[in-house]
Amino acid sequence: MSKVIWKPGTFIYPLPVVMVSCGTMEKSNIITVAWTGIINSEKPMCYISVRKERYSHDIIEKSKEFVINLTTKDLVYATDWCGVKTGAKVDKFKEMKLDKEESKFVKCPAIKQSPVSIECKVKEIKNLGSHDMFIAEILSINADEKYINAKGAFDITKCNLITYANGKYFALGKMLGKFGYSVQKKSKSKKTKKF
Amino acid sequence: MSKVIWKPGTFIYPLPVVMVSCGTMEKSNIITVAWTGIINSEKPMCYISVRKERYSHDIIEKSKEFVINLTTKDLVYATDWCGVKTGAKVDKFKEMKLDKEESKFVKCPAIKQSPVSIECKVKEIKNLGSHDMFIAEILSINADEKYINAKGAFDITKCNLITYANGKYFALGKMLGKFGYSVQKKSKSKKTKKF
Repeated sequence: MSKVIWKPGTFIYPLPVVMVSCGTMEKSNIITVAWTGIINSEKPMCYISVRKERYSHDIIEKSKEFVINLTTKDLVYATDWCGVKTGAKVDKFKEMKLDKEESKFVKCPAIKQSPVSIECKVKEIKNLGSHDMFIAEILSINADEKYINAKGAFDITKCNLITYANGKYFALGKMLGKFGYSVQKKSKSKKTKKF
Repeated sequence: MSKVIWKPGTFIYPLPVVMVSCGTMEKSNIITVAWTGIINSEKPMCYISVRKERYSHDIIEKSKEFVINLTTKDLVYATDWCGVKTGAKVDKFKEMKLDKEESKFVKCPAIKQSPVSIECKVKEIKNLGSHDMFIAEILSINADEKYINAKGAFDITKCNLITYANGKYFALGKMLGKFGYSVQKKSKSKKTKKF
Protein backbone atom coordinates (compact mmCIF):
# COMPACT_ATOMS: atom_id res chain seq x y z
CA MET A 1 0.00 0.00 0.00
CA SER A 2 1.23 3.49 -0.89
CA LYS A 3 -0.37 5.03 2.15
CA VAL A 4 0.55 5.43 5.80
CA ILE A 5 -2.06 3.95 8.18
CA TRP A 6 -2.98 6.44 10.89
CA LYS A 7 -5.23 5.94 13.85
CA PRO A 8 -8.92 6.86 13.38
CA GLY A 9 -9.58 10.61 13.16
CA THR A 10 -12.00 13.19 11.80
CA PHE A 11 -10.39 13.68 8.41
CA ILE A 12 -13.16 14.19 5.84
CA TYR A 13 -12.24 17.45 4.08
CA PRO A 14 -13.06 20.04 2.83
CA LEU A 15 -16.16 20.67 4.94
CA PRO A 16 -18.77 23.39 5.14
CA VAL A 17 -18.24 25.81 8.04
CA VAL A 18 -21.50 27.44 9.05
CA MET A 19 -22.72 29.79 11.76
CA VAL A 20 -25.67 28.24 13.54
CA SER A 21 -27.98 30.71 15.25
CA CYS A 22 -30.27 29.57 18.05
CA GLY A 23 -32.50 30.86 20.84
CA THR A 24 -34.91 33.74 20.27
CA MET A 25 -34.74 37.28 18.86
CA GLU A 26 -34.30 38.52 22.46
CA LYS A 27 -31.91 35.87 23.76
CA SER A 28 -29.87 34.28 21.03
CA ASN A 29 -26.49 32.74 20.37
CA ILE A 30 -24.29 31.73 17.45
CA ILE A 31 -22.15 28.59 17.29
CA THR A 32 -19.81 27.79 14.41
CA VAL A 33 -20.07 24.21 13.20
CA ALA A 34 -18.19 22.13 10.62
CA TRP A 35 -19.80 18.82 11.57
CA THR A 36 -22.85 19.50 9.40
CA GLY A 37 -24.30 18.29 6.10
CA ILE A 38 -27.27 17.00 4.17
CA ILE A 39 -28.55 13.54 5.14
CA ASN A 40 -31.68 13.20 2.99
CA SER A 41 -33.02 14.84 -0.17
CA GLU A 42 -36.78 14.11 -0.22
CA LYS A 43 -37.74 15.47 2.17
CA PRO A 44 -34.73 17.72 2.81
CA MET A 45 -32.96 16.89 6.08
CA CYS A 46 -29.66 17.90 7.61
CA TYR A 47 -27.72 17.59 10.85
CA ILE A 48 -25.38 19.45 13.11
CA SER A 49 -23.20 17.70 15.68
CA VAL A 50 -22.49 19.74 18.82
CA ARG A 51 -20.42 18.94 21.90
CA LYS A 52 -22.64 18.50 24.95
CA GLU A 53 -20.71 21.11 26.95
CA ARG A 54 -21.21 23.91 24.42
CA TYR A 55 -23.49 26.78 25.46
CA SER A 56 -25.70 26.37 22.38
CA HIS A 57 -26.24 22.64 23.00
CA ASP A 58 -28.83 23.10 25.72
CA ILE A 59 -30.58 25.94 23.89
CA ILE A 60 -31.08 23.76 20.81
CA GLU A 61 -31.95 20.70 22.89
CA LYS A 62 -34.76 22.62 24.58
CA SER A 63 -36.09 24.71 21.68
CA LYS A 64 -35.59 22.00 19.00
CA GLU A 65 -34.85 24.73 16.46
CA PHE A 66 -31.84 26.31 14.81
CA VAL A 67 -30.83 28.26 11.72
CA ILE A 68 -27.81 27.35 9.59
CA ASN A 69 -26.20 30.48 8.11
CA LEU A 70 -23.72 29.92 5.26
CA THR A 71 -20.49 31.87 5.65
CA THR A 72 -18.38 33.96 3.29
CA LYS A 73 -14.98 35.58 2.93
CA ASP A 74 -16.37 38.73 4.59
CA LEU A 75 -17.61 36.61 7.50
CA VAL A 76 -14.49 34.47 8.05
CA TYR A 77 -13.31 36.42 11.12
CA ALA A 78 -16.77 36.23 12.73
CA THR A 79 -17.03 32.55 11.76
CA ASP A 80 -13.79 31.76 13.56
CA TRP A 81 -14.57 33.97 16.56
CA CYS A 82 -18.05 32.46 17.05
CA GLY A 83 -16.39 29.03 17.05
CA VAL A 84 -13.93 29.74 19.85
CA LYS A 85 -15.88 32.10 22.15
CA THR A 86 -18.73 31.03 24.41
CA GLY A 87 -22.16 32.60 24.37
CA ALA A 88 -22.21 32.20 28.15
CA LYS A 89 -19.88 35.20 28.35
CA VAL A 90 -20.38 37.29 25.23
CA ASP A 91 -23.18 38.48 22.96
CA LYS A 92 -21.86 37.21 19.65
CA PHE A 93 -24.30 39.15 17.45
CA LYS A 94 -23.30 42.39 19.19
CA GLU A 95 -19.54 41.77 19.37
CA MET A 96 -19.28 40.72 15.71
CA LYS A 97 -21.71 43.47 14.57
CA LEU A 98 -24.00 40.91 13.00
CA ASP A 99 -27.65 41.82 12.48
CA LYS A 100 -30.50 39.57 13.53
CA GLU A 101 -33.42 39.07 11.24
CA GLU A 102 -36.62 37.23 12.01
CA SER A 103 -37.08 33.75 10.63
CA LYS A 104 -40.37 32.64 9.15
CA PHE A 105 -40.88 29.21 10.74
CA VAL A 106 -38.67 29.22 13.86
CA LYS A 107 -38.11 31.62 16.75
CA CYS A 108 -34.31 31.77 16.19
CA PRO A 109 -32.94 34.85 14.45
CA ALA A 110 -31.07 34.44 11.18
CA ILE A 111 -27.86 36.33 10.45
CA LYS A 112 -28.64 39.11 7.97
CA GLN A 113 -25.05 39.20 6.60
CA SER A 114 -25.19 35.52 5.60
CA PRO A 115 -26.17 34.93 1.95
CA VAL A 116 -28.30 31.86 2.80
CA SER A 117 -30.06 31.05 6.06
CA ILE A 118 -31.62 27.62 6.49
CA GLU A 119 -34.42 27.20 9.02
CA CYS A 120 -34.33 23.82 10.75
CA LYS A 121 -36.57 21.84 13.11
CA VAL A 122 -34.94 19.09 15.22
CA LYS A 123 -36.57 15.68 14.78
CA GLU A 124 -34.14 13.53 16.78
CA ILE A 125 -31.10 13.93 19.04
CA LYS A 126 -28.55 11.14 18.77
CA ASN A 127 -25.98 10.79 21.54
CA LEU A 128 -22.79 9.56 19.88
CA GLY A 129 -20.13 10.22 22.52
CA SER A 130 -18.39 13.59 22.49
CA HIS A 131 -21.14 15.06 20.33
CA ASP A 132 -24.91 14.99 20.08
CA MET A 133 -26.13 14.81 16.50
CA PHE A 134 -29.18 17.01 15.97
CA ILE A 135 -31.08 15.46 13.05
CA ALA A 136 -33.35 18.08 11.56
CA GLU A 137 -35.88 18.77 8.88
CA ILE A 138 -35.16 21.78 6.67
CA LEU A 139 -38.18 24.10 6.79
CA SER A 140 -37.04 26.78 4.37
CA ILE A 141 -34.09 28.18 2.47
CA ASN A 142 -33.86 31.94 2.85
CA ALA A 143 -31.64 33.45 0.15
CA ASP A 144 -30.32 36.97 -0.12
CA GLU A 145 -31.92 38.37 -3.26
CA LYS A 146 -28.76 40.10 -4.34
CA TYR A 147 -27.33 36.70 -5.39
CA ILE A 148 -30.42 35.66 -7.35
CA ASN A 149 -29.92 36.22 -11.06
CA ALA A 150 -32.38 37.31 -13.75
CA LYS A 151 -33.46 33.69 -14.28
CA GLY A 152 -34.38 33.34 -10.61
CA ALA A 153 -31.42 31.05 -9.83
CA PHE A 154 -29.04 31.53 -6.93
CA ASP A 155 -25.54 32.28 -8.26
CA ILE A 156 -23.30 30.52 -5.78
CA THR A 157 -20.11 31.84 -7.40
CA LYS A 158 -21.06 35.41 -6.47
CA CYS A 159 -21.28 35.12 -2.70
CA ASN A 160 -17.71 34.05 -1.86
CA LEU A 161 -18.47 30.99 0.25
CA ILE A 162 -15.70 29.55 2.41
CA THR A 163 -14.73 26.01 3.28
CA TYR A 164 -12.82 24.35 6.13
CA ALA A 165 -10.03 21.79 5.78
CA ASN A 166 -7.73 20.45 8.50
CA GLY A 167 -7.73 23.57 10.68
CA LYS A 168 -7.77 26.17 7.92
CA TYR A 169 -10.41 28.29 6.18
CA PHE A 170 -10.20 28.58 2.39
CA ALA A 171 -11.95 30.63 -0.27
CA LEU A 172 -13.40 28.64 -3.14
CA GLY A 173 -11.14 28.65 -6.20
CA LYS A 174 -11.60 27.92 -9.85
CA MET A 175 -14.79 26.20 -11.05
CA LEU A 176 -13.69 22.82 -12.43
CA GLY A 177 -16.89 21.45 -13.92
CA LYS A 178 -20.61 21.07 -13.48
CA PHE A 179 -22.30 17.97 -12.09
CA GLY A 180 -22.70 15.52 -14.99
CA TYR A 181 -20.13 17.21 -17.27
CA SER A 182 -18.18 13.96 -17.72
CA VAL A 183 -21.10 12.35 -19.55
CA GLN A 184 -22.58 15.45 -21.12
CA LYS A 185 -19.41 15.90 -23.19
CA LYS A 186 -20.23 12.67 -24.94
CA SER A 187 -24.00 12.93 -25.01
CA LYS A 188 -25.73 16.22 -24.31
CA SER A 189 -29.16 14.67 -23.93
CA LYS A 190 -28.03 12.18 -21.26
CA LYS A 191 -30.06 12.58 -18.14
CA THR A 192 -27.94 12.69 -15.00
CA LYS A 193 -28.76 11.18 -11.67
CA LYS A 194 -28.99 13.02 -8.42
CA PHE A 195 -27.01 12.41 -5.25
CA MET B 1 -36.32 40.46 6.06
CA SER B 2 -33.72 40.94 3.31
CA LYS B 3 -34.05 37.39 2.08
CA VAL B 4 -36.39 35.53 -0.25
CA ILE B 5 -38.08 32.54 1.42
CA TRP B 6 -37.74 29.42 -0.74
CA LYS B 7 -39.24 26.02 -0.16
CA PRO B 8 -37.10 23.49 1.76
CA GLY B 9 -34.10 22.18 -0.19
CA THR B 10 -30.66 20.65 0.21
CA PHE B 11 -28.70 23.89 0.22
CA ILE B 12 -25.82 23.51 2.68
CA TYR B 13 -22.68 24.43 0.66
CA PRO B 14 -19.83 23.97 -0.02
CA LEU B 15 -19.72 20.23 0.68
CA PRO B 16 -17.08 17.52 0.45
CA VAL B 17 -17.40 15.36 -2.67
CA VAL B 18 -15.84 11.94 -2.08
CA MET B 19 -15.51 8.67 -3.94
CA VAL B 20 -16.80 5.84 -1.76
CA SER B 21 -15.39 2.43 -2.62
CA CYS B 22 -17.22 -0.72 -1.57
CA GLY B 23 -17.36 -4.47 -2.12
CA THR B 24 -14.21 -6.56 -2.25
CA MET B 25 -10.88 -6.47 -4.12
CA GLU B 26 -12.43 -8.84 -6.68
CA LYS B 27 -15.90 -7.34 -6.99
CA SER B 28 -15.94 -3.67 -6.11
CA ASN B 29 -17.69 -0.44 -6.99
CA ILE B 30 -17.26 3.30 -6.52
CA ILE B 31 -20.05 5.76 -5.77
CA THR B 32 -19.55 9.51 -5.55
CA VAL B 33 -21.19 11.09 -2.54
CA ALA B 34 -21.65 14.66 -1.32
CA TRP B 35 -24.05 13.83 1.50
CA THR B 36 -21.20 12.93 3.89
CA GLY B 37 -19.51 14.41 6.94
CA ILE B 38 -18.22 13.95 10.46
CA ILE B 39 -20.83 13.35 13.14
CA ASN B 40 -18.70 12.65 16.23
CA SER B 41 -15.11 13.35 17.29
CA GLU B 42 -14.36 10.97 20.17
CA LYS B 43 -14.60 8.34 18.90
CA PRO B 44 -14.42 9.41 15.26
CA MET B 45 -17.64 8.72 13.35
CA CYS B 46 -18.99 9.77 9.98
CA TYR B 47 -21.88 9.08 7.64
CA ILE B 48 -22.76 8.73 4.00
CA SER B 49 -26.34 9.02 2.74
CA VAL B 50 -27.13 6.92 -0.33
CA ARG B 51 -30.33 6.55 -2.36
CA LYS B 52 -31.85 3.10 -1.89
CA GLU B 53 -31.92 2.43 -5.65
CA ARG B 54 -28.20 2.98 -6.15
CA TYR B 55 -26.09 -0.08 -7.01
CA SER B 56 -23.71 0.52 -4.10
CA HIS B 57 -26.53 0.76 -1.56
CA ASP B 58 -27.10 -3.00 -1.30
CA ILE B 59 -23.39 -3.79 -1.33
CA ILE B 60 -22.79 -1.50 1.67
CA GLU B 61 -25.98 -2.65 3.39
CA LYS B 62 -24.79 -6.26 3.23
CA SER B 63 -21.06 -5.86 3.87
CA LYS B 64 -21.43 -3.03 6.43
CA GLU B 65 -18.14 -1.57 5.20
CA PHE B 66 -16.95 1.20 2.90
CA VAL B 67 -13.94 3.42 2.24
CA ILE B 68 -14.21 7.20 1.78
CA ASN B 69 -11.59 8.45 -0.71
CA LEU B 70 -10.98 12.21 -0.77
CA THR B 71 -10.92 13.71 -4.25
CA THR B 72 -8.62 16.16 -6.00
CA LYS B 73 -8.35 18.36 -9.08
CA ASP B 74 -6.77 15.43 -10.94
CA LEU B 75 -9.70 13.22 -9.94
CA VAL B 76 -12.55 15.62 -10.76
CA TYR B 77 -13.51 13.89 -14.02
CA ALA B 78 -13.54 10.45 -12.36
CA THR B 79 -15.42 11.92 -9.38
CA ASP B 80 -18.16 13.22 -11.64
CA TRP B 81 -18.26 10.10 -13.80
CA CYS B 82 -18.51 7.74 -10.81
CA GLY B 83 -21.45 9.87 -9.61
CA VAL B 84 -23.52 9.54 -12.78
CA LYS B 85 -22.71 6.01 -14.02
CA THR B 86 -23.98 2.82 -12.40
CA GLY B 87 -21.74 0.00 -11.25
CA ALA B 88 -24.41 -2.43 -12.48
CA LYS B 89 -23.18 -1.73 -16.02
CA VAL B 90 -19.56 -0.59 -15.81
CA ASP B 91 -16.38 -1.39 -13.91
CA LYS B 92 -15.60 2.07 -12.58
CA PHE B 93 -12.05 1.27 -11.42
CA LYS B 94 -11.22 -0.04 -14.89
CA GLU B 95 -12.98 2.63 -16.94
CA MET B 96 -11.47 5.51 -14.92
CA LYS B 97 -8.03 3.83 -14.73
CA LEU B 98 -8.09 3.94 -10.96
CA ASP B 99 -5.94 1.48 -9.02
CA LYS B 100 -7.25 -0.62 -6.18
CA GLU B 101 -5.20 -1.02 -3.05
CA GLU B 102 -5.95 -3.25 -0.13
CA SER B 103 -7.37 -1.73 3.02
CA LYS B 104 -6.17 -2.76 6.44
CA PHE B 105 -9.40 -3.26 8.38
CA VAL B 106 -12.07 -3.76 5.71
CA LYS B 107 -12.41 -5.90 2.60
CA CYS B 108 -13.18 -2.93 0.31
CA PRO B 109 -10.38 -1.65 -1.88
CA ALA B 110 -9.18 1.93 -1.46
CA ILE B 111 -8.42 4.15 -4.47
CA LYS B 112 -4.67 4.51 -4.80
CA GLN B 113 -4.88 7.88 -6.58
CA SER B 114 -6.79 9.43 -3.66
CA PRO B 115 -4.58 11.32 -1.16
CA VAL B 116 -6.56 10.09 1.86
CA SER B 117 -8.65 6.92 2.20
CA ILE B 118 -10.82 6.49 5.28
CA GLU B 119 -11.81 2.96 6.31
CA CYS B 120 -15.32 2.81 7.77
CA LYS B 121 -17.48 0.22 9.55
CA VAL B 122 -21.26 0.72 9.44
CA LYS B 123 -22.86 0.79 12.91
CA GLU B 124 -26.41 1.76 11.97
CA ILE B 125 -28.53 2.31 8.88
CA LYS B 126 -31.17 5.02 9.20
CA ASN B 127 -34.00 5.08 6.70
CA LEU B 128 -34.83 8.75 6.14
CA GLY B 129 -36.90 8.70 2.95
CA SER B 130 -35.09 9.04 -0.36
CA HIS B 131 -31.80 8.13 1.29
CA ASP B 132 -30.47 5.68 3.84
CA MET B 133 -27.93 7.22 6.18
CA PHE B 134 -25.06 4.83 6.87
CA ILE B 135 -23.69 5.83 10.27
CA ALA B 136 -20.15 4.51 10.60
CA GLU B 137 -17.16 4.32 12.83
CA ILE B 138 -13.88 5.46 11.30
CA LEU B 139 -11.35 2.64 11.64
CA SER B 140 -8.29 4.30 10.13
CA ILE B 141 -7.07 7.25 8.10
CA ASN B 142 -4.74 6.14 5.32
CA ALA B 143 -2.70 9.05 4.01
CA ASP B 144 -0.48 9.21 0.95
CA GLU B 145 3.01 9.78 2.32
CA LYS B 146 3.91 12.25 -0.38
CA TYR B 147 1.73 14.85 1.37
CA ILE B 148 3.22 14.25 4.81
CA ASN B 149 5.80 16.91 5.62
CA ALA B 150 9.08 16.67 7.56
CA LYS B 151 7.23 17.22 10.84
CA GLY B 152 4.96 14.24 10.16
CA ALA B 153 1.91 16.43 9.48
CA PHE B 154 -0.38 16.06 6.48
CA ASP B 155 -0.15 19.20 4.32
CA ILE B 156 -3.69 19.60 3.04
CA THR B 157 -2.78 22.56 0.83
CA LYS B 158 -0.55 20.30 -1.31
CA CYS B 159 -3.07 17.74 -2.53
CA ASN B 160 -5.53 20.01 -4.42
CA LEU B 161 -8.75 18.91 -2.78
CA ILE B 162 -12.02 19.82 -4.47
CA THR B 163 -15.38 20.88 -3.09
CA TYR B 164 -18.96 20.79 -4.36
CA ALA B 165 -21.45 23.66 -4.32
CA ASN B 166 -24.86 23.85 -5.98
CA GLY B 167 -24.05 21.56 -8.90
CA LYS B 168 -20.46 22.66 -9.47
CA TYR B 169 -17.02 21.38 -8.50
CA PHE B 170 -14.47 23.94 -7.29
CA ALA B 171 -10.79 23.91 -6.46
CA LEU B 172 -9.89 25.32 -3.05
CA GLY B 173 -8.69 28.90 -3.27
CA LYS B 174 -6.74 31.22 -0.99
CA MET B 175 -6.13 30.22 2.63
CA LEU B 176 -7.99 32.82 4.71
CA GLY B 177 -6.99 31.93 8.26
CA LYS B 178 -6.32 29.14 10.70
CA PHE B 179 -8.82 27.86 13.24
CA GLY B 180 -8.57 30.16 16.27
CA TYR B 181 -6.80 33.02 14.47
CA SER B 182 -9.42 35.55 15.54
CA VAL B 183 -8.46 35.16 19.19
CA GLN B 184 -4.79 34.37 18.70
CA LYS B 185 -4.25 37.85 17.23
CA LYS B 186 -5.16 39.31 20.59
CA SER B 187 -3.69 36.63 22.83
CA LYS B 188 -1.26 34.06 21.49
CA SER B 189 -1.49 31.84 24.54
CA LYS B 190 -5.28 31.56 24.38
CA LYS B 191 -6.32 27.97 24.22
CA THR B 192 -8.89 27.31 21.53
CA LYS B 193 -11.77 24.94 21.67
CA LYS B 194 -12.45 22.14 19.26
CA PHE B 195 -15.53 21.61 17.09
